[in-house]
Amino acid sequence: MSHAFPHRHLLGIEGLSSHDIRFLLDEAEQWIAFNRGVRKQDHRLDGLTQINAFFENSTRTLFSFEIAGKRLGAQVANFHAATSSVKKGESLIDTALTLNAMRPDVLVIRHEANGAAADVATVMECPVINAGDGRGEHPTQALLDALTIRRRKGRVEGLKVAICGDIRHSRVAGSNMRSLPALGAEVRVVGPEALLPASLPEHIRAFTDLDEGIAGVDVVMMLRIQRERMDAALSEGLGDYHGRYGLTRARLALAAPDAIVMHPGPMNRGVEIDSNVADDPERSTIREQVELGVAVRMACLDVLTRNRRGG
Amino acid sequence: MSHAFPHRHLLGIEGLSSHDIRFLLDEAEQWIAFNRGVRKQDHRLDGLTQINAFFENSTRTLFSFEIAGKRLGAQVANFHAATSSVKKGESLIDTALTLNAMRPDVLVIRHEANGAAADVATVMECPVINAGDGRGEHPTQALLDALTIRRRKGRVEGLKVAICGDIRHSRVAGSNMRSLPALGAEVRVVGPEALLPASLPEHIRAFTDLDEGIAGVDVVMMLRIQRERMDAALSEGLGDYHGRYGLTRARLALAAPDAIVMHPGPMNRGVEIDSNVADDPERSTIREQVELGVAVRMACLDVLTRNRRGG
Amino acid sequence: MSHAFPHRHLLGIEGLSSHDIRFLLDEAEQWIAFNRGVRKQDHRLDGLTQINAFFENSTRTLFSFEIAGKRLGAQVANFHAATSSVKKGESLIDTALTLNAMRPDVLVIRHEANGAAADVATVMECPVINAGDGRGEHPTQALLDALTIRRRKGRVEGLKVAICGDIRHSRVAGSNMRSLPALGAEVRVVGPEALLPASLPEHIRAFTDLDEGIAGVDVVMMLRIQRERMDAALSEGLGDYHGRYGLTRARLALAAPDAIVMHPGPMNRGVEIDSNVADDPERSTIREQVELGVAVRMACLDVLTRNRRGG
Repeated sequence: MSHAFPHRHLLGIEGLSSHDIRFLLDEAEQWIAFNRGVRKQDHRLDGLTQINAFFENSTRTLFSFEIAGKRLGAQVANFHAATSSVKKGESLIDTALTLNAMRPDVLVIRHEANGAAADVATVMECPVINAGDGRGEHPTQALLDALTIRRRKGRVEGLKVAICGDIRHSRVAGSNMRSLPALGAEVRVVGPEALLPASLPEHIRAFTDLDEGIAGVDVVMMLRIQRERMDAALSEGLGDYHGRYGLTRARLALAAPDAIVMHPGPMNRGVEIDSNVADDPERSTIREQVELGVAVRMACLDVLTRNRRGG
Repeated sequence: MSHAFPHRHLLGIEGLSSHDIRFLLDEAEQWIAFNRGVRKQDHRLDGLTQINAFFENSTRTLFSFEIAGKRLGAQVANFHAATSSVKKGESLIDTALTLNAMRPDVLVIRHEANGAAADVATVMECPVINAGDGRGEHPTQALLDALTIRRRKGRVEGLKVAICGDIRHSRVAGSNMRSLPALGAEVRVVGPEALLPASLPEHIRAFTDLDEGIAGVDVVMMLRIQRERMDAALSEGLGDYHGRYGLTRARLALAAPDAIVMHPGPMNRGVEIDSNVADDPERSTIREQVELGVAVRMACLDVLTRNRRGG
Repeated sequence: MSHAFPHRHLLGIEGLSSHDIRFLLDEAEQWIAFNRGVRKQDHRLDGLTQINAFFENSTRTLFSFEIAGKRLGAQVANFHAATSSVKKGESLIDTALTLNAMRPDVLVIRHEANGAAADVATVMECPVINAGDGRGEHPTQALLDALTIRRRKGRVEGLKVAICGDIRHSRVAGSNMRSLPALGAEVRVVGPEALLPASLPEHIRAFTDLDEGIAGVDVVMMLRIQRERMDAALSEGLGDYHGRYGLTRARLALAAPDAIVMHPGPMNRGVEIDSNVADDPERSTIREQVELGVAVRMACLDVLTRNRRGG
């Protein structure tokens, strides 16, 4: 614990060293057991105000941050943009300045625009955690994914990970393509041409064939496909999405014998993933990801407020 | 207090013994006085996470459970399905598994489908309280109704209770038709043919005439009528709903001289109930029902989490 | 602190003495420093239930009251009317009676109807704070405005204050036209004829020309203009709203050299106020108003619950 986290905000995996990432994962470990107990009340954030400002609907992530904050003792207040002055035409920065004036100690933000969390961080006097910005980053998702892999496999280094689906529009993919290589994994992406990014880091290989892409991998990370994007890809003559990119039990057999299957949720069963894969307790880590998500968010809230708390 | 409540969940009145019901009512008594004080902070649920997952709008019941949980010390988090991944097509069971992975200690659920709470309970590792499932049950409403009767009348046994209105579609009626007979009351139902259930337990008599139905009863329990259902009943040539099924002061005179008037709210004044009846402090128990509702929910939250808390 | 606040509710500035107003401002002072600390947890409202019943969307004010209550230790529960039984046709008074039966210790209400808070107060057994009623009053806004002026200028007495914009429909103007004169300021209002009130107190002068109205004033208080109202005013041949009533740097030069600029937010930048004025740290008090708003609401919650708390 002697490592001081050298960042004021958590805006993305970009900019974090592998040491920083491992530090956050190590910190999260303690909260897993804590959350499995009955009395789950820590006091380190007592009297601190945590604002969750969600400008995009995301009950799942919002809920995870809300529970994380409450378990640490924070005063948690959810700012729902759908009913806010945002609708009255106020700019994001003006809203941020208003929230800042209420003296929060940590701001968790989700927004549909790339870079929104970074923009907001420029005017906030407290730490900002990016809970998803457009097609940018979703760092706590990547951290919980890395933690899940590390716990299931004992390590991340040296593993082969295939991220499959709509890579181009996914901030989950965006953050995982940064964190997993930093931790020593070999990452590949798989998806229809139309849903792959225009450019990729050199060390990441792209596949348009799912069978080829997942051959021999240790981790198959499926992404949620949005119907409209699937239709767009299909209109290019790709045929049935599930037939080409859905993870079936037969296809999973092409991966390593002990490969795990991940999904950030919510799933489209029968589209990008079959139920007998999603519900396989040996292979699927989907529920564990949700569980570790709370632990990871507790770690982030704790670590980022340490300087303020003078500890 | 030596009675151990032998059920893991509270899914309905069905399956509860009269002993179980009385136990919950007895437990609720203590919270009535507690709630009338200024400092209303108990600590038995400190550090426990209570999730209120409401898939149907119901501010009143949600609010009652939220206040109940906070007064017991719980971390209360409201999951609003209207803005959730449910809208993205996730199944109820997948949503439940996600919530379960966040390690709640009690889940309160309202859902528009019959049996939803029971379905969800099959996958949750914590107690589940049904806050209303379709046309099924609404057990805490029946408990607060029974408690209100017991406090106003000194007993439930031997009383005549008429439940009036849209019996067929009402989960309030559904639960009360189970709890009140179990406590020894004689229950009758009153409503237009189209709004009576296809079948009834042998011991419950049905009336289509309100005057006949409430003649001599000790308790007149009015139900909220939905406009569209009223119109459907009227289209069968029943004439004016209020004229035939609205509770007026004149009609109430047909009941026992000290009969009380109940309504689960929200009321349609001038439709199923007249204001001079609803606002009569001697006869109407409508506000008391709301008050006792918080006490009943505190009792349920407390009793159902006792095993977890190791007490 | 020997002054006992002699009012049960805070329904408006009307009815408050200048002594009452100063007392609330003095009480608010302590919370400003408190809110700038890291641990912001007071316990005087521990175990008290604060209900925020907002029948109009207003995230900003709701959020300010929510944070204020949590910092004082209250159990805060937000009643969102948009998803409530209000939509099922229940009257405001029936909703209030339902909330009252849940035994809150303070009710904060915002409603689109003039006099709604006063109506509700007639049936509540706890103190009621008006967080904005129609075109009526918004007393905590006027208090935070007065506190901002007092802190920036050292006093309110003897200052010239121009309130500019849609005076007729503004409850912010309504409350400030009561509080500022009570504290000894000279208040004038400025706006297009169509947006000025039909009648004004004798001591308040009205101007339709902004340059004339703000000449030499110490405080320029801009109001948010709603697009539809602006269009209506413009249709009377007034030309460009910003051109005639927008506060520019050039216009601000007509005020006193050290005049401050206020706005209750959210701003329409480039409409009623230019960005270089709004963002001028020497002149603009807009963020400070938000900050002091939390302090003022803490003072009101504290003072109004003192009798209950037996202090």
